[in-house]
Amino acid sequence: MTPIDLVESDDVIGTNVYDANGEHVGSVERLIIGKRDGRVAHAVLSFGGVWGFGADYYPVPWSALTYDEDLGGFRVNITREQVENAPKYDADSDYDWSPENDRRIGDYYGR
Amino acid sequence: MTPIDLVESDDVIGTNVYDANGEHVGSVERLIIGKRDGRVAHAVLSFGGVWGFGADYYPVPWSALTYDEDLGGFRVNITREQVENAPKYDADSDYDWSPENDRRIGDYYGR
Repeated sequence: MTPIDLVESDDVIGTNVYDANGEHVGSVERLIIGKRDGRVAHAVLSFGGVWGFGADYYPVPWSALTYDEDLGGFRVNITREQVENAPKYDADSDYDWSPENDRRIGDYYGR
Repeated sequence: MTPIDLVESDDVIGTNVYDANGEHVGSVERLIIGKRDGRVAHAVLSFGGVWGFGADYYPVPWSALTYDEDLGGFRVNITREQVENAPKYDADSDYDWSPENDRRIGDYYGR
């Protein structure tokens, strides 16, 4: 057990996201939470320009993110190539958080 | 399984909180998340004046909150009397999210 296992949502949302090489590739826009089980199912990421994906929002399974104390942000275990055809939505519109889309996100990233 | 089980953090944080009688008593200020298991451990609530507790922040176990579609907010299964001596912190300061305090919150509310 690590000394401090808990983190405030304010310190997750808006936090930088880094790729496997420690390169800053985006940030966490919001979290997607299971109403009943209270588990964070997905983090919605933006890759604002860094990987050339514009302003779209990408839901990624929470389990693909690891907090890196040194970087002060999350490492995502996904590649630019994976993101290219990944489920996404327009930042100005709503995503349909149906069980099908929930599964689709997990399946896409192999989780 | 309900049709839509997932909720966006934007629709949780800032959302109204109601007591067992459906009276509006406060709102959700932030969520406290387990880094490793990705579970929402606590919701930090404010009772801004309604119950006469001023602007302090009250961490409450997530399991004490139930989303009520009709109210469009969370019902909390706690009473004014329970909140009176509950763990709290100043909105302008940081809470010590130690394992001890984590347990203390759960113990206080009998979860």
